[in-house]
Amino acid sequence: MRATFMFGAGDVRVLDAPDPTIQLPTDALVRVTRSCVCGSDLHPYHSMPPTDAGSTMGHEFIGVVEAVGADVRTLRPGDFVIAPFAISCGVCEFCRAGLQTSCVNGGFWNDPSIGAAGGQAEAVRVPLADGTLVKVPGVTEDTDDALLGSLLTLSDVYGTGWHAAVKGGVSAGTSVTVIGDGAVGLLAVLSAKQLGAERIVLMGRHDVRTRLGVELGATDVVAERGDEGIAAVRDLTGGGSQVVLEAVGHMPAYDQAVGVVRPGGVISRVGVPQYEDAPVGFGSLFGPNVTLTGGPAPVRAYIEQLLPAVLDGTVDPGRVFDRTVSLDDTPAGYAAMDAREALKVMVTP
Amino acid sequence: MRATFMFGAGDVRVLDAPDPTIQLPTDALVRVTRSCVCGSDLHPYHSMPPTDAGSTMGHEFIGVVEAVGADVRTLRPGDFVIAPFAISCGVCEFCRAGLQTSCVNGGFWNDPSIGAAGGQAEAVRVPLADGTLVKVPGVTEDTDDALLGSLLTLSDVYGTGWHAAVKGGVSAGTSVTVIGDGAVGLLAVLSAKQLGAERIVLMGRHDVRTRLGVELGATDVVAERGDEGIAAVRDLTGGGSQVVLEAVGHMPAYDQAVGVVRPGGVISRVGVPQYEDAPVGFGSLFGPNVTLTGGPAPVRAYIEQLLPAVLDGTVDPGRVFDRTVSLDDTPAGYAAMDAREALKVMVTP
Repeated sequence: MRATFMFGAGDVRVLDAPDPTIQLPTDALVRVTRSCVCGSDLHPYHSMPPTDAGSTMGHEFIGVVEAVGADVRTLRPGDFVIAPFAISCGVCEFCRAGLQTSCVNGGFWNDPSIGAAGGQAEAVRVPLADGTLVKVPGVTEDTDDALLGSLLTLSDVYGTGWHAAVKGGVSAGTSVTVIGDGAVGLLAVLSAKQLGAERIVLMGRHDVRTRLGVELGATDVVAERGDEGIAAVRDLTGGGSQVVLEAVGHMPAYDQAVGVVRPGGVISRVGVPQYEDAPVGFGSLFGPNVTLTGGPAPVRAYIEQLLPAVLDGTVDPGRVFDRTVSLDDTPAGYAAMDAREALKVMVTP
Repeated sequence: MRATFMFGAGDVRVLDAPDPTIQLPTDALVRVTRSCVCGSDLHPYHSMPPTDAGSTMGHEFIGVVEAVGADVRTLRPGDFVIAPFAISCGVCEFCRAGLQTSCVNGGFWNDPSIGAAGGQAEAVRVPLADGTLVKVPGVTEDTDDALLGSLLTLSDVYGTGWHAAVKGGVSAGTSVTVIGDGAVGLLAVLSAKQLGAERIVLMGRHDVRTRLGVELGATDVVAERGDEGIAAVRDLTGGGSQVVLEAVGHMPAYDQAVGVVRPGGVISRVGVPQYEDAPVGFGSLFGPNVTLTGGPAPVRAYIEQLLPAVLDGTVDPGRVFDRTVSLDDTPAGYAAMDAREALKVMVTP
């Protein structure tokens, strides 16, 4: 089959790779219908040291089950499935508590320790298939593209935006600021709107994206950054936002979150931090009793809840896809996202 | 009157000072019945640069109202009152929300900007008296010492331990680890117990204190620190504590909190951080979806709720006081706490 590999910063190639096979009785084989490139794929695209071996890529895909191991109970060949970005057993303490990203038996795609390759490929071996995959009745490979795109966002970006809003405690009437106009930030806007937020300030400076953000529910857009951006949000919200959803992961976004949050408020982070240390002392979080929460989204916990509104068209999170490439053109997809010519790139095998 | 001043690290003196007077119509004058020395008073006791002017000291006291300004509505001379460690107006957005430490009109004792001197004195001018003070009917200066001590803890340490537990989300069945066996840590144990925690691990290495901790509700004591202490708690709790109450404020206590918290859990800090930056990235908080919360306790918000069980003797938080000194001996009280000969020192004028 064809599969995507990264050999170093900026070096993405689509190559022939061995067809995946069932290796454990809890495995499934999934033929990929759609996959995509994630903002977080751009981190290694910027920084990965050159390597001869290469890493498989992709952690978001939807597809059709081709075969299952002897112990798989909930899936059969032909089932249409969504694959969350974390592999999870479904039975450990953390899976039962809805924190599948901390599954004690699971792991992540492209991690050789669990033997799972990436989703930017024609097919994928799925470990712990019962715990990992979510079956979607009534959908096939021939379902219309818009709906397939929305289902694909449930692999990661929609569930991640939702996680930000849930952990932030967004509810009816909350004032929310979303930092970042990437796919996760925009779907954090959608999620906050769904959860009843009254005011949703989107901090972002890419016109096309913030316009989509307004369509998804943002009530205000602040294009300024740094102190100017902080002042603008504090002014708009009368002294700071009760909830801040941080969907970037870089240090300036953290500083912005601390700057715009209201005393007693919550900063909920879902952008993967590109830093380890950050201010948390009296002058930042402690003094004003600000709560810092968030982490990798256990999207598996949210898919069943979010699915009905996607299937009936109430929400259309797939609008974050603004470009589609064939699998062999995946490298061009990375380049387009890196150059910010594309917001999020879908890959068709 | 006599009042306590600090002139630099280790230099505490009790001197004659002008009697306080009503300066604004919202002021009250309170004659101090009991005050005390706080663990946080030891921070300047270690580090304050020498100064000729000196700072007044003390932010915890109970006493009797001697006079009120023309606009004070809820208090009369003769009322017995508890003074929280934060001065608050009672009417701003944050006071109404129970976050009096962020009051937009208030401030703290010993802060010249609000003109409030300290409680380690014979009398105190209380700004914003209606919002700040809590009247306790039925109590007088002649009430027995044990009850006065317990009422005095509502000025700070009991409310602070309670805040830790509340912000940590402690409820029936929670597994809790408390870091620190000072007065706040011990009353965080009591608070966690009152809120229904099932397992309460107390990390502390001062025998007398941890024994009191066990009497107040700790189910286990871990005396080890660092990696050894973390391993012990993780072992006791089967992989980490759902809630960690950090009642120290030094960096090693933060590291310990990160080490013992369970994925998806909460670290609630009430020890005033003696650091600004700390690990919050993928390897500490983000990866396991750990929430960091807490801050200066709005004890004003908790006093009415905690008072009945104090008054009827159900709880006895005043047990944290293990030494009493006269006002003129306050410097000896600082020295005893600094040498860890005393857990918490009460001051009688």
